[in-house]
Amino acid sequence: MAIKTPEQYLESLRDGRVVWLQGKRVEDVTRHPHLRTCAEGCVMDYFFRQDPKYRSLLLEQDEKGEFYDFVFKPAENAEDLLRRREIIQLMARTCFGMPAGAKFTGIDALHSLTAVCRRMDEELGTSYAPRVEAFREICKQNDPAVAVAMTDVKGDRSLRPSKQKPHQDYYVRIVDETKEGIVVSGAKAHISLSPLCNEMIVLNCRAMKEDDKDYAVAFVVQPSTKGLTFIAPQPEPVEEGNYFDYPLTGHRYGADALVIFDNVFVPMDRVFLKGEWQFAGPFAYMFANFHRVSADAYKVAELDIMVGAAALMAEYNGLEKVPHVQDKLSWLVWYAETTEALGRAACQNCLTDLPSGMAYPNPMISNAAKFFYADNFHQALKLILDIAGGITVTIPSSKDYFNPETRHLLDKYLGGKEGVPAEHRIRAINLVRDIAGTAHQVTTIHAEGSLSAQRLSFFTLADFDRYKVAAKRVAGIEDGKEHPLYSSLPKFPALTWD
Amino acid sequence: MAIKTPEQYLESLRDGRVVWLQGKRVEDVTRHPHLRTCAEGCVMDYFFRQDPKYRSLLLEQDEKGEFYDFVFKPAENAEDLLRRREIIQLMARTCFGMPAGAKFTGIDALHSLTAVCRRMDEELGTSYAPRVEAFREICKQNDPAVAVAMTDVKGDRSLRPSKQKPHQDYYVRIVDETKEGIVVSGAKAHISLSPLCNEMIVLNCRAMKEDDKDYAVAFVVQPSTKGLTFIAPQPEPVEEGNYFDYPLTGHRYGADALVIFDNVFVPMDRVFLKGEWQFAGPFAYMFANFHRVSADAYKVAELDIMVGAAALMAEYNGLEKVPHVQDKLSWLVWYAETTEALGRAACQNCLTDLPSGMAYPNPMISNAAKFFYADNFHQALKLILDIAGGITVTIPSSKDYFNPETRHLLDKYLGGKEGVPAEHRIRAINLVRDIAGTAHQVTTIHAEGSLSAQRLSFFTLADFDRYKVAAKRVAGIEDGKEHPLYSSLPKFPALTWD
Amino acid sequence: MAIKTPEQYLESLRDGRVVWLQGKRVEDVTRHPHLRTCAEGCVMDYFFRQDPKYRSLLLEQDEKGEFYDFVFKPAENAEDLLRRREIIQLMARTCFGMPAGAKFTGIDALHSLTAVCRRMDEELGTSYAPRVEAFREICKQNDPAVAVAMTDVKGDRSLRPSKQKPHQDYYVRIVDETKEGIVVSGAKAHISLSPLCNEMIVLNCRAMKEDDKDYAVAFVVQPSTKGLTFIAPQPEPVEEGNYFDYPLTGHRYGADALVIFDNVFVPMDRVFLKGEWQFAGPFAYMFANFHRVSADAYKVAELDIMVGAAALMAEYNGLEKVPHVQDKLSWLVWYAETTEALGRAACQNCLTDLPSGMAYPNPMISNAAKFFYADNFHQALKLILDIAGGITVTIPSSKDYFNPETRHLLDKYLGGKEGVPAEHRIRAINLVRDIAGTAHQVTTIHAEGSLSAQRLSFFTLADFDRYKVAAKRVAGIEDGKEHPLYSSLPKFPALTWD
Amino acid sequence: MAIKTPEQYLESLRDGRVVWLQGKRVEDVTRHPHLRTCAEGCVMDYFFRQDPKYRSLLLEQDEKGEFYDFVFKPAENAEDLLRRREIIQLMARTCFGMPAGAKFTGIDALHSLTAVCRRMDEELGTSYAPRVEAFREICKQNDPAVAVAMTDVKGDRSLRPSKQKPHQDYYVRIVDETKEGIVVSGAKAHISLSPLCNEMIVLNCRAMKEDDKDYAVAFVVQPSTKGLTFIAPQPEPVEEGNYFDYPLTGHRYGADALVIFDNVFVPMDRVFLKGEWQFAGPFAYMFANFHRVSADAYKVAELDIMVGAAALMAEYNGLEKVPHVQDKLSWLVWYAETTEALGRAACQNCLTDLPSGMAYPNPMISNAAKFFYADNFHQALKLILDIAGGITVTIPSSKDYFNPETRHLLDKYLGGKEGVPAEHRIRAINLVRDIAGTAHQVTTIHAEGSLSAQRLSFFTLADFDRYKVAAKRVAGIEDGKEHPLYSSLPKFPALTWD
Repeated sequence: MAIKTPEQYLESLRDGRVVWLQGKRVEDVTRHPHLRTCAEGCVMDYFFRQDPKYRSLLLEQDEKGEFYDFVFKPAENAEDLLRRREIIQLMARTCFGMPAGAKFTGIDALHSLTAVCRRMDEELGTSYAPRVEAFREICKQNDPAVAVAMTDVKGDRSLRPSKQKPHQDYYVRIVDETKEGIVVSGAKAHISLSPLCNEMIVLNCRAMKEDDKDYAVAFVVQPSTKGLTFIAPQPEPVEEGNYFDYPLTGHRYGADALVIFDNVFVPMDRVFLKGEWQFAGPFAYMFANFHRVSADAYKVAELDIMVGAAALMAEYNGLEKVPHVQDKLSWLVWYAETTEALGRAACQNCLTDLPSGMAYPNPMISNAAKFFYADNFHQALKLILDIAGGITVTIPSSKDYFNPETRHLLDKYLGGKEGVPAEHRIRAINLVRDIAGTAHQVTTIHAEGSLSAQRLSFFTLADFDRYKVAAKRVAGIEDGKEHPLYSSLPKFPALTWD
Repeated sequence: MAIKTPEQYLESLRDGRVVWLQGKRVEDVTRHPHLRTCAEGCVMDYFFRQDPKYRSLLLEQDEKGEFYDFVFKPAENAEDLLRRREIIQLMARTCFGMPAGAKFTGIDALHSLTAVCRRMDEELGTSYAPRVEAFREICKQNDPAVAVAMTDVKGDRSLRPSKQKPHQDYYVRIVDETKEGIVVSGAKAHISLSPLCNEMIVLNCRAMKEDDKDYAVAFVVQPSTKGLTFIAPQPEPVEEGNYFDYPLTGHRYGADALVIFDNVFVPMDRVFLKGEWQFAGPFAYMFANFHRVSADAYKVAELDIMVGAAALMAEYNGLEKVPHVQDKLSWLVWYAETTEALGRAACQNCLTDLPSGMAYPNPMISNAAKFFYADNFHQALKLILDIAGGITVTIPSSKDYFNPETRHLLDKYLGGKEGVPAEHRIRAINLVRDIAGTAHQVTTIHAEGSLSAQRLSFFTLADFDRYKVAAKRVAGIEDGKEHPLYSSLPKFPALTWD
Repeated sequence: MAIKTPEQYLESLRDGRVVWLQGKRVEDVTRHPHLRTCAEGCVMDYFFRQDPKYRSLLLEQDEKGEFYDFVFKPAENAEDLLRRREIIQLMARTCFGMPAGAKFTGIDALHSLTAVCRRMDEELGTSYAPRVEAFREICKQNDPAVAVAMTDVKGDRSLRPSKQKPHQDYYVRIVDETKEGIVVSGAKAHISLSPLCNEMIVLNCRAMKEDDKDYAVAFVVQPSTKGLTFIAPQPEPVEEGNYFDYPLTGHRYGADALVIFDNVFVPMDRVFLKGEWQFAGPFAYMFANFHRVSADAYKVAELDIMVGAAALMAEYNGLEKVPHVQDKLSWLVWYAETTEALGRAACQNCLTDLPSGMAYPNPMISNAAKFFYADNFHQALKLILDIAGGITVTIPSSKDYFNPETRHLLDKYLGGKEGVPAEHRIRAINLVRDIAGTAHQVTTIHAEGSLSAQRLSFFTLADFDRYKVAAKRVAGIEDGKEHPLYSSLPKFPALTWD
Repeated sequence: MAIKTPEQYLESLRDGRVVWLQGKRVEDVTRHPHLRTCAEGCVMDYFFRQDPKYRSLLLEQDEKGEFYDFVFKPAENAEDLLRRREIIQLMARTCFGMPAGAKFTGIDALHSLTAVCRRMDEELGTSYAPRVEAFREICKQNDPAVAVAMTDVKGDRSLRPSKQKPHQDYYVRIVDETKEGIVVSGAKAHISLSPLCNEMIVLNCRAMKEDDKDYAVAFVVQPSTKGLTFIAPQPEPVEEGNYFDYPLTGHRYGADALVIFDNVFVPMDRVFLKGEWQFAGPFAYMFANFHRVSADAYKVAELDIMVGAAALMAEYNGLEKVPHVQDKLSWLVWYAETTEALGRAACQNCLTDLPSGMAYPNPMISNAAKFFYADNFHQALKLILDIAGGITVTIPSSKDYFNPETRHLLDKYLGGKEGVPAEHRIRAINLVRDIAGTAHQVTTIHAEGSLSAQRLSFFTLADFDRYKVAAKRVAGIEDGKEHPLYSSLPKFPALTWD
């Protein structure tokens, strides 16, 4: 098969999976009004792949000449990472700035498995890497939608997995093991696209200590597996199909489900970590390297829309020439373009994982990129709303606009700059309101790792010796410590004055 | 009558006013699901006034011993301003942080009229002040809900009222005048509570130049007047009465209508400005002095809820002892308490308008207070969402929670710190999501004047001579300019060393 | 004597105290080029008190009609605190924004002793309060310059006093005790004005635990006491008396000495804490309440100069009408005026210490004020330097300006706006450079408590119950907890719809 | 000759140039205590080029096999730009973070001339490009120190060059012209290294309009030319050779002179712009592209020292494990590494100037990089000083430290974490104080273009059409405008639901 059609993909989702949403069991995830909204983004993957125009970007050929999805290929160099970035941005630009496509998160997990299992096998003598490769082959063949389940529900955040109370299932764990496989229980939260995937890779979300050993577990599972329950989140409460009032949120439903594992059996060839607690951290770390860069890629498409919305409002309100508005737009441009530059830089300055030969995004830069845009996001919102004005939340409904008894009033009074139809201005206003909603803010901060996670990464990745040696060299502190970048430098000043 | 009962107030709204909402003409504003939500806040005014416990705070007695609402009394000193502040906070604390009550905005306009008309009469020989006093007496007698209509729809923001195209009605203006009164046309935007008021004071929203003379107009009008149309804003799209999922937005509807004046006749005794363009600015300025302080007062109640939501999430997630969480909570406390201190300070350091004898909030401090909380609001949201976590937008619906088939799963897996019921944590999560919505952000920035309006006030109010003389004194620049605060000081150093 | 003359004050400093500065023992602190600079600020106290014009502000009369310095009087109400504030600002405005006068820091310590010793005596049955009163009487009589020594040198900041290594003297401690008195050793850092004081109050800088008991010690000592050594800090390396190039730093030397106690004997009647470790914290806390407000008071005078310097540069560079420059000036005005408003608010909303009857600044607001200006200071510097331009650090020396061979070139080419003499512009530039120096930054952040100290105060002082109850009320969380401000409120909505 | 030795370079500066400093004419710029400090950085260029270890990085060979300095080669691709970056960083890391070397600024001007003159010749039919190439050949041969004189003294910033009063020389202009050459007058401010260069390229600092034609002038001139006067800036007032107290400022003197042109004659073959006012803007713009990236390169070396100083203070104070200190260090690491990533990205994503074939840094990213580090610099200072503590400005002089009578006291009491010699801690403290000085702040903001210049660049370079089309696509606004990145995308959602 190799490349699925949209229809094949949708058909594949009708498999009896247990999905709850707003208190009801979902019969068919492809026909539910909210899950369908999510499916519209997932299906783009298959849709694009049908179009010859995108073939060279999206597809690769295996030795037999069979096409398969490029994203299943392990990245070998910066070009591969930049190509992946281009694919994500194609999807996101098409899908109104959202991280769309059916494999967005899963691929980053697959790459993490590839790199870390190889290293683990080398160090511990395990043999997980061949299992990962076997799974990768399946992916190339079956072209599945792949999700990743990382974040455990966590319970009390101040306690490690094995110390939780009153129960031990706040993190997914191995509750039983046979020769054939393992049995797991627990729950993962906000698992994007999971009700619409074919394969769900389950990974640790944090480093573990030895007594958390049962929680050091990674595997892949299919949504219809017995014991799996998906509870999809409360959707934005917008009227179905009302894209005039809700141009963005009307299309946005991430289906970031709560996924509950109730004694789920996983056959051994689908298990990639089983108690090797020392490698729980590396899985999470390597996933983050890939995923923060993926996040940065789609974010750029979102920022195009945000900067554009602000620029439109400035234009429509007749404020384009006002200096403080130009200042704000300049800042927004800087914000968007710096996000793009940093995301690219993380790819351009990629590192290579030695055992596996995989290229992975520069960890410092990928974290720096994520932190940059997440930390500044609320500032961006403030400026956009400042430009847009109070009307953003006092705009009448489209039902008033399309009511002949009031339309002429709105056309007359909600105009802005001469020549701009009131309808355009109203649509732009609705877009701004939609941009500033809670969902946007929370995913910016928390999806792909919170601000604290990035700060921790900076601290961990920092070459403090380098910084310190640089400072000591100036301060005249001689304590015998060296750093290659500084210790080979000549003395300064080099000149001896007579 | 003097003090209306809640029932009398509601009854008074059934007067045939023309109100549109989501494409339908509203029959009875007190029974419409959304306008009713707004009425719930307005009616608190009348509700509290029935309770003897609040009488000493809320009521005054006139010479005849008749009780009337304290807010109709012109402030004479800091105590009066602080008492008004206490009333606003009582309402806001009761009504979930909202600027509630039936007179919230109108009173600030009435005070502005009182101060400015007196000055105008003195300077121009007009006789508006007695009309204002007459209207005030009516207020004391009839106890009306009073709104204020300030912000014109404005069209192209770079053009003054008389320069707008393609029509001249982007700002409310006098289109005709007879001995009996004036006729006005135009539209005002986001007029809070207006569909639920008894009297609507209409004021200029900006200073005018001579050729904008027709736009220099202030008056009071009743909602059922012929030619008036209210188009109420698109409500937050929340399910009616679902306060579990929408604890805040479920209660929040400001009814900030677009108010259209189509050849509305206003009798002369209800007109307070008619072409005296020089005083358009002072009306707006004096209103802002009062209204920014009113805003600051209710904001404090809102911030209590916001800081509390963050503190609850920290507690429920087991993060109370984590240093960076404590740091964030500390900042939030500082933010809330500084807002309170500055609002009080604007009252405590009030000024007196000489002609009228009215006390009004210190303009520099009232603007400083508004700017402080509005400029920092997005930072506050960032911190709150950071503490609350991604679950804020992936939380399942209450319908899943109250479904026996899934409730046990949510009770088990959405728990946090031991001992906290999952329901409490879910409710807190929903509160956080509601806090961060667009409406909150926009009203914080734009209601009661945008950030730019405050910046402009600082520049205008600044005693630059004082600053410059202070600097010149140090820099040794002698250019003959003086300032009382500095010019009387002794030379420094005073000491002459031998 | 009661009120010293400037000459008497200077004479009193010639007492053999051991002061080192730049490697040399200082013979006479009143004639040393750097210490003299500091003395110029201290002496203003005595200078002003000679001037009848300031008598009503500065002096009080005791029962015998004898005048004494008002600052020695314990504050009884807001007016007293505001008067103290006015005095600090008079000094600071005179002395180029510096916290001048001979008692600036000491008074805050005396007030802290007054309040806390009374409470301690009540709780522990000690009898320190009478000793404090006796010392206060001495002050009223002798009119001494009073410094306070708070900050210990601290060694390893992660260890408590008694855990330090390799020696135990990183915090001042009691090393011996007899019936007559105690013997102390250790060192205190950056003790402002100490080489120029007559009395130095020594206080704990932090809370203590029981095993730090020996470090819980407070007393007063005179600078010439045996065993005391002062090492004054490295002065700003400016040319003596060159006030053209260094208009601010040429006058600024805080003499913030390192004070070393080498087995210093303190007679028992001068000891105010001796091992009562539970009260070490309250001393530091109450001192901070007073001192942060004192800091805020002089800061306002400094900010006048800073805003003025920016406004002058904008004027001299011809940039006054440029919108982004006006925006920056507006922000600076806001920054200065909010600092003033918050400082006043801390006094206006003061609290009363019950045992002693003393009024003390509102702790939340005094910390909020300090945090506000310290946290924003670097933003202010950025804006000022942005307006001033690169010339700030490339300006030629005054020696070039006063050299006839180059003066005409500088007069021609360093002009700005027409009509402004180049000399004025050059002087303003030098002022800006001086403002942005390291000293200014560090004292803003660290003097009177670091940003972290304020954050900790917010956390400690916060009424988290209030915030949480406010949030729970909205979220519908019922856990039986109450708060007076919220629990008495009526239910919302109060209205029952049929 | 091709590659000068350090001695040859120094000798070449003894040519009678007119340099004033602190009121005195400088006899020999290589022996003056302050200018010598600057020369120590310049000479490193020649010093490094003597060392075979650095040959492959620093030198190129021409067709005849003759070595010449790589920096004189026009960049052809990203690798060349990255190599230039590596050279700047080598110098800066060696020279304590400073933009050292003898050609730092000049090269960016030479590259700008190369690109723009080619385009100008094509468009206007002038023949400047060959002159530039001839000058480049001279550079390859003579290996001169090259400065650039950009910033005019500007007078009233609100007026264009030809509108200045009371004289017309606030911008350098052509005052006369003959067949042999032009005569120029005026003055340029803060011309780094200029008193120590061999060739000074003079360029417009801004775009011009037609009536500013006489001010549209570019040329190269040697410092000893008749009519040229250099007035070097007031040095930091530190004691000569005292590197203990002033580890950074003791080495830092940029010699950013005021350069006065009094009827200076420039032969025609050294003139590169003469009245073609349309190209004044492009010169400045292209220079900025190169120079902002050069700035970013050396800044990284400076940030190593700054982050290192903070990290050392955290270590020495025993604060390494304190969470809020780790948070601050994390932010500083992010700040430094993002600056590095953005600077590299500007090179990696370079553009090509078509007529000349030169590679030049990506303008959006080079501005983004500069803005990023300049806008955040004061935040960095705040954090560093916060970590370092108040001792930064109250530390005793090294003269006290090296005085045997006080050294033991300082060794005992200024210790921090056990095992760290007090001397190390004192040295680190002095480094921090030096880092936070005014010079550092001002050059960060203003050197290589102010924050406003970058904001303007963002606005000018922004592809607003792209942003707007992205927003319109979501908002459903159809106004016929297209953008290649968006207009080719398929409709979303692509799926048609039955």
